[in-house]
Amino acid sequence: MTRSFETPAFEAALWELLRWRRDVRSFRTDPLDEADIQSLLEAAQLAPSVGLSQPWRFVRVRTPELRAAVRACFERCNAEALAGYDGEQAALYAKLKLSGLNDAPVQIAVFCVDDVETGHGLGRRTMPETAAYSVVIAVHTLWLTARAKGIGMGWVSILDPDEIAGALSVPAGWRLIAYLCLGKPSADHDSPELERAGWEHRLPLDAVLVER
Amino acid sequence: MTRSFETPAFEAALWELLRWRRDVRSFRTDPLDEADIQSLLEAAQLAPSVGLSQPWRFVRVRTPELRAAVRACFERCNAEALAGYDGEQAALYAKLKLSGLNDAPVQIAVFCVDDVETGHGLGRRTMPETAAYSVVIAVHTLWLTARAKGIGMGWVSILDPDEIAGALSVPAGWRLIAYLCLGKPSADHDSPELERAGWEHRLPLDAVLVER
Repeated sequence: MTRSFETPAFEAALWELLRWRRDVRSFRTDPLDEADIQSLLEAAQLAPSVGLSQPWRFVRVRTPELRAAVRACFERCNAEALAGYDGEQAALYAKLKLSGLNDAPVQIAVFCVDDVETGHGLGRRTMPETAAYSVVIAVHTLWLTARAKGIGMGWVSILDPDEIAGALSVPAGWRLIAYLCLGKPSADHDSPELERAGWEHRLPLDAVLVER
Repeated sequence: MTRSFETPAFEAALWELLRWRRDVRSFRTDPLDEADIQSLLEAAQLAPSVGLSQPWRFVRVRTPELRAAVRACFERCNAEALAGYDGEQAALYAKLKLSGLNDAPVQIAVFCVDDVETGHGLGRRTMPETAAYSVVIAVHTLWLTARAKGIGMGWVSILDPDEIAGALSVPAGWRLIAYLCLGKPSADHDSPELERAGWEHRLPLDAVLVER
């Protein structure tokens, strides 16, 4: 039986989705449909996880006070990062737009419960970091299903993870994996912003592939 | 403009793909088309990465000697893991098939170069683990594009990562993220094997979602 996702047309569209799934930092401020947000979170629940541990936890960040705290944390961490560059690279870094925290109508902090009981430890004895990796796949699943709805996502990592966990008053043992901005993109591109800005270029496959 | 991935039909098929993208542990031994493998690795290159750092490195593991070394490492780590369970849980664990290492025609070890120069450190100062997270998304991208071609993938984490890096003689600083088995699945399911076997069940969304 050929399933709906095993057709050449689907495969071509999936590749197009992968090319257009960009990190978005410029959002329109109009709100997203709550049913859409719920749907994206349901999609994330379909992610694979080590030992079926499902260690992901999603925190919808809604209040202006908490959003301001996240922005302040980003501004400080970003200034510290800028101070680590010199000359032309510093000038280029300073011009980059590295988050959509000011505008994104939906913001979600994603955590991992490293010692989660679900899954009974299966697959995590020698590589406990696979719990966090499971959370990352949930984030990527959300990202792809968002883009298929015309919703853009940006992943902000220029943050102090412990400070964000504290500001959001999450339970002890929850570790920040990602802070996500979601909204309608104010512009659309099929190439990474950092490539267009001249920060870095993409590598060919033979630069990352080894045979043994 | 509506793109090919912004149609209701595509979205429905993407969800079906996400549901059917299982961790596969039972493979047919017939070889995969080399052009398909190349295509999956090219898809992985489209993954987002922190600062466009592209820290992923893929090692095709081809020789019987190296594959036997990986299997031996798995067998030992799996026996040690089994020894950590008692009673009924131990009996259930012992019955689980946790890797397709014996049969999978294609095996790829995936590494992260944590201190990769590409990307010039952008986004990694406060959360350096985002390099590994980028590699995880490349793995997930490969997983999804494989499934759309009818190719199954299994992620083996019951391994000693340093031992695998040593056996494969990778450069210093390459850290094992995943060991992947790929091939045609010998059976097909839309529910996780660990759920069918009664090891763990899936959580509802409200168990993992918090509002702030």
